Amino acid sequence: MSATKSPDTQQTRRQIKASVLHGAKDLRIESRSLFPPNADELQVAIRATGLCGSDLHYYRHYRNGDIMVREPMSLGHESAGVVVGVGSSVKDFKIGDKVALEVGLPCGECDRCGEGRYNICKAMSFRSSAKAFPHAQGTLQDRINHPAAWCHKLPDDVSLDLGAILEPLGVAIHATRRANLPTGSTVLVFGAGAVGLLVAAMAKISGASTVIIADIDSGRVDFAVNNAFAHKGYTVPMKRGSTIEENLAIAKETAAEIGKVKKSSGQPAVEVDAVFECTGVPSCLQAAIFATRPGGKVMLIGMGTPIQTLPISAAALREVDLVGVFRYANTYPMGIEVVSKKGPDYPDFSKLVTHRYKGLESAVQAFDMAGNTKDVDGKLVIKVVIETDEEDKARL
Amino acid sequence: MSATKSPDTQQTRRQIKASVLHGAKDLRIESRSLFPPNADELQVAIRATGLCGSDLHYYRHYRNGDIMVREPMSLGHESAGVVVGVGSSVKDFKIGDKVALEVGLPCGECDRCGEGRYNICKAMSFRSSAKAFPHAQGTLQDRINHPAAWCHKLPDDVSLDLGAILEPLGVAIHATRRANLPTGSTVLVFGAGAVGLLVAAMAKISGASTVIIADIDSGRVDFAVNNAFAHKGYTVPMKRGSTIEENLAIAKETAAEIGKVKKSSGQPAVEVDAVFECTGVPSCLQAAIFATRPGGKVMLIGMGTPIQTLPISAAALREVDLVGVFRYANTYPMGIEVVSKKGPDYPDFSKLVTHRYKGLESAVQAFDMAGNTKDVDGKLVIKVVIETDEEDKARL
Amino acid sequence: MSATKSPDTQQTRRQIKASVLHGAKDLRIESRSLFPPNADELQVAIRATGLCGSDLHYYRHYRNGDIMVREPMSLGHESAGVVVGVGSSVKDFKIGDKVALEVGLPCGECDRCGEGRYNICKAMSFRSSAKAFPHAQGTLQDRINHPAAWCHKLPDDVSLDLGAILEPLGVAIHATRRANLPTGSTVLVFGAGAVGLLVAAMAKISGASTVIIADIDSGRVDFAVNNAFAHKGYTVPMKRGSTIEENLAIAKETAAEIGKVKKSSGQPAVEVDAVFECTGVPSCLQAAIFATRPGGKVMLIGMGTPIQTLPISAAALREVDLVGVFRYANTYPMGIEVVSKKGPDYPDFSKLVTHRYKGLESAVQAFDMAGNTKDVDGKLVIKVVIETDEEDKARL
Amino acid sequence: MSATKSPDTQQTRRQIKASVLHGAKDLRIESRSLFPPNADELQVAIRATGLCGSDLHYYRHYRNGDIMVREPMSLGHESAGVVVGVGSSVKDFKIGDKVALEVGLPCGECDRCGEGRYNICKAMSFRSSAKAFPHAQGTLQDRINHPAAWCHKLPDDVSLDLGAILEPLGVAIHATRRANLPTGSTVLVFGAGAVGLLVAAMAKISGASTVIIADIDSGRVDFAVNNAFAHKGYTVPMKRGSTIEENLAIAKETAAEIGKVKKSSGQPAVEVDAVFECTGVPSCLQAAIFATRPGGKVMLIGMGTPIQTLPISAAALREVDLVGVFRYANTYPMGIEVVSKKGPDYPDFSKLVTHRYKGLESAVQAFDMAGNTKDVDGKLVIKVVIETDEEDKARL
Repeated sequence: MSATKSPDTQQTRRQIKASVLHGAKDLRIESRSLFPPNADELQVAIRATGLCGSDLHYYRHYRNGDIMVREPMSLGHESAGVVVGVGSSVKDFKIGDKVALEVGLPCGECDRCGEGRYNICKAMSFRSSAKAFPHAQGTLQDRINHPAAWCHKLPDDVSLDLGAILEPLGVAIHATRRANLPTGSTVLVFGAGAVGLLVAAMAKISGASTVIIADIDSGRVDFAVNNAFAHKGYTVPMKRGSTIEENLAIAKETAAEIGKVKKSSGQPAVEVDAVFECTGVPSCLQAAIFATRPGGKVMLIGMGTPIQTLPISAAALREVDLVGVFRYANTYPMGIEVVSKKGPDYPDFSKLVTHRYKGLESAVQAFDMAGNTKDVDGKLVIKVVIETDEEDKARL
Repeated sequence: MSATKSPDTQQTRRQIKASVLHGAKDLRIESRSLFPPNADELQVAIRATGLCGSDLHYYRHYRNGDIMVREPMSLGHESAGVVVGVGSSVKDFKIGDKVALEVGLPCGECDRCGEGRYNICKAMSFRSSAKAFPHAQGTLQDRINHPAAWCHKLPDDVSLDLGAILEPLGVAIHATRRANLPTGSTVLVFGAGAVGLLVAAMAKISGASTVIIADIDSGRVDFAVNNAFAHKGYTVPMKRGSTIEENLAIAKETAAEIGKVKKSSGQPAVEVDAVFECTGVPSCLQAAIFATRPGGKVMLIGMGTPIQTLPISAAALREVDLVGVFRYANTYPMGIEVVSKKGPDYPDFSKLVTHRYKGLESAVQAFDMAGNTKDVDGKLVIKVVIETDEEDKARL
Repeated sequence: MSATKSPDTQQTRRQIKASVLHGAKDLRIESRSLFPPNADELQVAIRATGLCGSDLHYYRHYRNGDIMVREPMSLGHESAGVVVGVGSSVKDFKIGDKVALEVGLPCGECDRCGEGRYNICKAMSFRSSAKAFPHAQGTLQDRINHPAAWCHKLPDDVSLDLGAILEPLGVAIHATRRANLPTGSTVLVFGAGAVGLLVAAMAKISGASTVIIADIDSGRVDFAVNNAFAHKGYTVPMKRGSTIEENLAIAKETAAEIGKVKKSSGQPAVEVDAVFECTGVPSCLQAAIFATRPGGKVMLIGMGTPIQTLPISAAALREVDLVGVFRYANTYPMGIEVVSKKGPDYPDFSKLVTHRYKGLESAVQAFDMAGNTKDVDGKLVIKVVIETDEEDKARL
Repeated sequence: MSATKSPDTQQTRRQIKASVLHGAKDLRIESRSLFPPNADELQVAIRATGLCGSDLHYYRHYRNGDIMVREPMSLGHESAGVVVGVGSSVKDFKIGDKVALEVGLPCGECDRCGEGRYNICKAMSFRSSAKAFPHAQGTLQDRINHPAAWCHKLPDDVSLDLGAILEPLGVAIHATRRANLPTGSTVLVFGAGAVGLLVAAMAKISGASTVIIADIDSGRVDFAVNNAFAHKGYTVPMKRGSTIEENLAIAKETAAEIGKVKKSSGQPAVEVDAVFECTGVPSCLQAAIFATRPGGKVMLIGMGTPIQTLPISAAALREVDLVGVFRYANTYPMGIEVVSKKGPDYPDFSKLVTHRYKGLESAVQAFDMAGNTKDVDGKLVIKVVIETDEEDKARL
């Protein structure tokens, strides 16, 4: 394998290793050839890739909802790495820089791009998504070339694992921006997985005075409160009705119970100004609608059942708005600031990475672990990261 | 029957006539006694009351969705009349003034009232609604006492029928305010009944450059376009699937067809920035979601099926927000300006009142007519108004 | 002096003591008679009144800018006390409750009131302001009657001094609401007096990631940073030019120097998203305009020179908006939450009250102290509070 | 002179004619060589260029305020033309297309560009502005190469003169967007020059129910009202005080007089919700502040005296915000829709071009005319356009 010393003067390709999905649970390590970066690109040696729910869907079913994989595809889009090649017209980056990768490339020309909402650009090309064809390959590769404009330099004291976390954190930042809550709001977050925890943290950082996190797993709820991701927790009891009406009654009851949680000031419970729904589960969205005060908002973050039966009048007649949240736009610089901070009451983002796997070859174990809520030792599984640090170093 | 000449000095009550609902389709003319107005009230002789869908529900079923009538109740809340008594501390009104009545009285003290969103005040008392108990009696009475602060003086050239129209127009004004559309937007309105027509007109007046109105009745669509309520029309073909999937496919197809309507500038069709859903019909809301461009809004105005099956991911993943619209707040002064204007391209609001009935005794016929979409002559039924002008005059 | 046991059954007035301003520096202790509270009022024994800049202006000049005092007037509007009488129709309050007083009573009927912006109601009656006539008397009295709707119950663990602080805190809350800054903003506050400190604290609590406070007094700057009111400080060097051009050059230089302060994440300095100008000094407003990034905001909070020479093109051509902030609306409930919280990185609001005086008789000394920036021991003077606890207790 | 048939295959430059400013009033016709368009560019034969106030400043003084011209520069930035060459990677355009040119090219990478506010991008390169160096040459040339992404195709029925008007119309569209006025607002526009007229028209189109235009020239006021650019007019009497105080008193008086203009509904005059200041004259901005209701906005559009003495407390204490408006962003598509429409009550945009000059050689006469408010026949001078149609046709 021949290494390029100067990517722009030498046009030879290098061979890299990639983890490639060929079918449901059919991950293969393959060799790919990588050109030197284009003039406006960086070549980045991937160091950390977090596994996301959509990756897991693709891994298990070779599809994600309606979206079928139509050609072999590398997974992974929560990524950070180190610059190993710099395109000829790139400024502000040098070899050795740590970078987080923003892996969605919008068209830059449509109305949505023009108004800064590039996350909903119809022509978006997003790594490890099979929506567009050919698929934009994910980051579970040794190296990738990526436009420098979509690489974000990390400060020395931000780890590459945290760099990978910036991707789901982007969703949380975007969600709080869309909610545009006044300071002092009371917020309820449904779901204490990685995204729910990040959303709760961002709501807190954004000035919500009481952030309540709700989950069916009391361990996750405790984790959230103990690590300063939320002020208060509520463990949702498991109940299931046999009709829509029963389920709605249960949702209403859940909403009522959560409404009794006290505010963080110790004051009596008050109305919930906004619910951030991070589960995608119909009963949670139903409860979210009931739990929100008149004039409040339900933020739709969790991707789940695409067609749901909803008490839509309970929303409309009380002007409870249902606000969609899809990915993120312009969030990385702020994300870097958010994870850079530390403090006694400040959420400890490094605790989100609960499980690390070394090398692309460990991807199968990593995906298997990502499918669990707890590991064999009973430890919570929140974010699983595949670190490709060691083997790549060897080959540099 | 003894008439009060000066309401504040003489404490005797007068007997008035009221149309009172005692059960499904059981409307009775009754005599009620009315005190002189309180210090802060006006006594208003009702002249015009428009019939609304909720009135019709009460009339037919003695309930409106979940809300049961629990005591005999006068219907009617779209009303205007003439001042016949002035409370002792009221300024700015005199006997003979024409007024439109804003019939919902909020608490004035809760957070929602504090921020100017009194329409979603939980303690709202609203005439002819059976939600609160005792019920606030509707305006199908000869006279009522009403707080002067919630009476709106009409200019000479605004008819009392138009005064009654200000109530549903308030919904349309409130809807366009909540939508907060930038000038030049493309808007789709589902439903060409009274509210849909008013919403289309307000969208046009608010600067939308292309307002398309869609209905299953081509007569209504034509009415809308011919009377300057909308720029363009689309008649929705009647189709019904036998499964959710089929219905969603039909909704998607409808959305696609509407998307081919040209902009009013003659330019090719473009994406719809906002849909105002005024029917409450699930298939329309489904189509509304599909018809809206990424980042757009669906305004939920039509009250219909309270629990609906919705393609919620098609909204959330494209950040199409579902925004509730319930009644109105602070809309009357603007409504008066809106109906005062005239112009060649300006919607002709007076055409909305298609059928008039004289006297409280005609209420049964009026309600029967309001339940039709066309009268026996094939003329569209849009707004039915009960005028109580003549008989009251006789007794003054 | 006869005490009322039950205000509603006994119509006799009680005699109370008031501190009344009769001319510049002419404060007199007088006896006033106080009726029992009206049906909707509370009678409140004042316990703490903070002195504000406007009080000081009235005290010194018997006027405040253009506003002349036209009849003897009690000063004081930052106040809290204890309920000693309850009007007949008041619910939710009982004798002994601690309350903070919101002393501005808007008309409740104009468009501004209707939209929740009652702070700019033209008919506002505000205690200790001589704008309206007769003047609404201030709180430097033993007791006052005040509408219960404008009294805010304090939790047990919020002191009456903090209750008085809620008034200037309201300004800070209102300012951050009007600024509506996205989370992660960089904020500059000019002026580290009571209002500047509160504004800085609120910007921090609202999610600004870097709050820089600037003042000519390094002691105040240090106080702000050491007590968690701001992240960073900047001491403005005293310089004065002899022409407008020189002064603008100095303002530009000051802005440039502040622009070099690092962000709290340690990242290099960035553009300031918003400046909160709390001094009213022309050179500060000039510097504020220059210091704000294109598209940012200057919040006008400090009341000072009413006519100023401003580099208005430097604002307009960069779309730096100048946003007025006048008093507050709907801020007390949130203020109570804000001062209820404690934490290692949380601003310590109790430290703002640096000087306390006992009894109305001490008002002259209190005003003299409030005119200083430091006391004889070199201790900062931030907020001076007159406590009327003891003497009133004796007479209860 | 050799014509290129196919710009991409033939690398020869063509010689074009340009009008170039070499000093104050020193315009020279010169020959320049023009390369074929780059891959992403169009070559456009300029047909119409409107003259703007900044062009006139450069022409007269070889500077514009503080900005000095540092190298010979073609003027002109309000332009439309015909496509005569198409870069190799350009889609959607073909030779013969009519296009309006958006002549400001932002960096596309900074935070402002990211959020869609590219008009305040610090690295903006704007034709005929001497701010950046080398200067971006203006459109008073036979042809220019321009990025296709910044060319806007015109429909057949929009003339090239109207295409040129899209540039100042962009300012008006941007101003109304920034004002974000609710439908039914009362608006005052100071200045009835081209920008003031366009702003008034856009306020009307955006749903303002009463648009009052004020100017010292009654002819302009009449023009505005007679051609449906505004509902109402007010001719400002010429008065000048000898002190700041006198001038402020005059400004206050002007504001009061304008406040007496009736609403377009014939209702009594009401408070002005927003003033669009399009003159840059200090007395107008002062009057604008006084004329605006509490909680309203003054939009700063006119570029004039950069340092002004302002009654800033009269703004701040009433929460009248001063909102900057600089150029425009994302306005061309909407502008095309706006000028495409016609109607009896609709502003007639074609009347804005009052004077046309043929050929680059006529530039001196055109600039001289643009400096007048009326021509020798007493006809208003609003927009002067240099048409380069004929001579270019000859050479095609």
